[in-house]
Amino acid sequence: MSKYDIIVLGSGPGGYVTAIRASQLGFKTAVIEKESLGGVCLNWGCIPTKALLKSAQVFEYLKHAEDYGLSVKEADKDFGAVVQRSRGVAEGMSKGVQFLMKKNKIDVIEGFGTLKTGKKVEVDGKEYSADHIIIATGARSRELPSLKQDGKKVIGYREAMTLKEQPKKMIVVGSGAIGVEFAYFYNSMGTDVTIVEFLPNVVPVEDEDVSKQLEKSFKKSGIKIMTSSEVTKVDTSGDGVIATIKTAKGEETLEADIILSAVGIKSNIENIGLEDVGIAVDRDKILVNNYYQTNIPGYYAIGDVTPGQALAHVASAEGILCVEKIAGQNVEALDYGNIPGCTYASPEIASVGMTEKQAKEKGYDIKVGKFPFSASGKASASGAKDGFVKVIFDAKYGEWLGCHMIGAGVTDMIAEAVLGRKLETTGHEVLKTVHPHPTMSEAVMEAVAAAYDEVIHL
Amino acid sequence: MSKYDIIVLGSGPGGYVTAIRASQLGFKTAVIEKESLGGVCLNWGCIPTKALLKSAQVFEYLKHAEDYGLSVKEADKDFGAVVQRSRGVAEGMSKGVQFLMKKNKIDVIEGFGTLKTGKKVEVDGKEYSADHIIIATGARSRELPSLKQDGKKVIGYREAMTLKEQPKKMIVVGSGAIGVEFAYFYNSMGTDVTIVEFLPNVVPVEDEDVSKQLEKSFKKSGIKIMTSSEVTKVDTSGDGVIATIKTAKGEETLEADIILSAVGIKSNIENIGLEDVGIAVDRDKILVNNYYQTNIPGYYAIGDVTPGQALAHVASAEGILCVEKIAGQNVEALDYGNIPGCTYASPEIASVGMTEKQAKEKGYDIKVGKFPFSASGKASASGAKDGFVKVIFDAKYGEWLGCHMIGAGVTDMIAEAVLGRKLETTGHEVLKTVHPHPTMSEAVMEAVAAAYDEVIHL
Repeated sequence: MSKYDIIVLGSGPGGYVTAIRASQLGFKTAVIEKESLGGVCLNWGCIPTKALLKSAQVFEYLKHAEDYGLSVKEADKDFGAVVQRSRGVAEGMSKGVQFLMKKNKIDVIEGFGTLKTGKKVEVDGKEYSADHIIIATGARSRELPSLKQDGKKVIGYREAMTLKEQPKKMIVVGSGAIGVEFAYFYNSMGTDVTIVEFLPNVVPVEDEDVSKQLEKSFKKSGIKIMTSSEVTKVDTSGDGVIATIKTAKGEETLEADIILSAVGIKSNIENIGLEDVGIAVDRDKILVNNYYQTNIPGYYAIGDVTPGQALAHVASAEGILCVEKIAGQNVEALDYGNIPGCTYASPEIASVGMTEKQAKEKGYDIKVGKFPFSASGKASASGAKDGFVKVIFDAKYGEWLGCHMIGAGVTDMIAEAVLGRKLETTGHEVLKTVHPHPTMSEAVMEAVAAAYDEVIHL
Repeated sequence: MSKYDIIVLGSGPGGYVTAIRASQLGFKTAVIEKESLGGVCLNWGCIPTKALLKSAQVFEYLKHAEDYGLSVKEADKDFGAVVQRSRGVAEGMSKGVQFLMKKNKIDVIEGFGTLKTGKKVEVDGKEYSADHIIIATGARSRELPSLKQDGKKVIGYREAMTLKEQPKKMIVVGSGAIGVEFAYFYNSMGTDVTIVEFLPNVVPVEDEDVSKQLEKSFKKSGIKIMTSSEVTKVDTSGDGVIATIKTAKGEETLEADIILSAVGIKSNIENIGLEDVGIAVDRDKILVNNYYQTNIPGYYAIGDVTPGQALAHVASAEGILCVEKIAGQNVEALDYGNIPGCTYASPEIASVGMTEKQAKEKGYDIKVGKFPFSASGKASASGAKDGFVKVIFDAKYGEWLGCHMIGAGVTDMIAEAVLGRKLETTGHEVLKTVHPHPTMSEAVMEAVAAAYDEVIHL
């Protein structure tokens, strides 16, 4: 029986990053993977969708070349080539992880791992033991009872990124990051897209102003949006699908070629031996302490199978922290109130901390500042005037409670707010940080200035 | 005679921002402008060049559409339309400043202002007085004796952004931000471009690794580069121009349609009455203290006419600080060691703080980390793998000495480093700031990790 210091179950952005950090810290490490190194994120999530979205972005430029003093004849997309490019990017990244495993001397065990008592894992009848076993099995697309996925006409994100043929009409159910990104992508490719959202606003976890701006931008780009609406029935017996949708005004039916179900995720905790080992679970999440220890010594869990935000960067951060704690380092628990979230449609969305509503509900007396990109010189020059930066400060002590951005490139701009919040900055310090001109990032400084009635360009 | 609290001489990004902040603070304010509101930055600099560069970027996408699974026939540019778009953006922004002046009840006095003793300014024979006069007259293109600008065949940045016809061959003398941006723009439009740089590296103020990367990227895109070279003679007697260039290997001649001289700037301190008032000057810079007071009470100077970096955002920050001090606020002097600099070609360049060479010269024991975008998932998905983030820390106390970026979108990413440095962050804090995945901004976290031997994706 092979013996390791650390075995990681699952090689997504939680698992493979954990394994690399473990190896750096001197642990003999193995990672178990049932399918592809890199997990959903690299193979079926973050990375390939960003490739699709890049093609969509470039296609938008092609379609609007005249706005920039340019001209094209017959701008067209080759849907198959767009998908193929995306698959190529994913494969390249997965090979990159393979290289990183080898470079860090991490054993990759292929197969489905099942936890055993006595700190062991079984893979295809073979047992491996370790001092520490870290569960990082991730999650998959959640299925609603009223919206069973058949993989053909009612699909999840995985099928949505590898369709052989482009659908003419598509219904996207759910408007979180995944739903919104695919809605944008398919609309841009020329598919007739309708979003159906159960809650009153699209991207419902975001600040309401962000939701409203996205709805406005999406409608302008031709995407239909039905909020406070629910798909109650799906008829797939004909050529396409007929969805029955309950709206505030009554029932409607909508025909389409395909329905994409993007109503959240379900963690992968089945059949991995949790019950045998006696690991405590609450609904579909494994219970862990601040250092990702489960109730059974020697067993840990990180990423989507635990209660924190189901995001790749959270999984990575948890895994690093978990093994640094095992190595005896003096680690600080992760601050789940300072995790950025991003949506990569156009306009992009990025946010961290409390929304205005949440801050008010918590009883804060707040100062709010908002700076629209329509007043930004760089945004004008770039033809990207949609969107804004909104900041929320505690009026009493000056704490930066939240930052909400929608617009071009904001997913690369949110890091400033995350770092600033981590370092407990005040608004005044952000304001007196010289932001380069002309950049989109000036909007952060100006939004803070607006919160303190010192905004220049409004 | 009209009497003001504050008169600002010049309405560039120094002057107009100063005037707005002054008005916010309750001062009766006027601004004097000889040409167009917004000065060089809005009308002939930062803003219109970014518009040109956006057209160039989109044109690159058109030319490489196939890389993204797309196709176009006859992708072409209309050089006149590209220039026209840029002029439109500049005009829009200048109108925006006009609106801001009105909204903030700032009097705009049109004409050339001359300083008089007794805190007065004369414009077209009319005198205006103020308690405080702030000189913000900016700068213009510097002329070399060997490279006299005739505005036709030997031009400055101003002509370069409004050429009626696209030159077939162009020599760009100087490879600072202005030279590099125009070289990229014209090359992208199809002009045959040669850069001649006196120093051994292009973008000579940047970290050497950045210079090398830019040279590599530019050469790949077809731009010719001659470093350690100098234009010693220009013959404009024929159809085009013939430049004699002294190189390390001897003398060469180069023919072109146009030479763009981009060898720095010369501040506008002539004929504005400095001598009459007795304001002290050192070479072409007005001497000021930490609060921008000149040697004569009641006269101040900010922006390009003072010794700090000649950048729009520096001028704005200086002006705001100047009037806040006049208003009796408790202000902190500007930290000129924490000013970001940006170059907006492709790849973009952004940096703040010391280069590796500077840090070593100052005797620091340093930790250096570098993360290439070729190892970034987001960069792969975006087809933007050129470039890197490089960070420099003091090994002893952990101070973040410098951050140097080259790649897509980095001009919007540098703000994180500027804020972090202002807040005296350590590398560990940046490392434990959860950066969203997948973004280009992760490269900052990874570069810091590399400096401390904790990098994951290398």
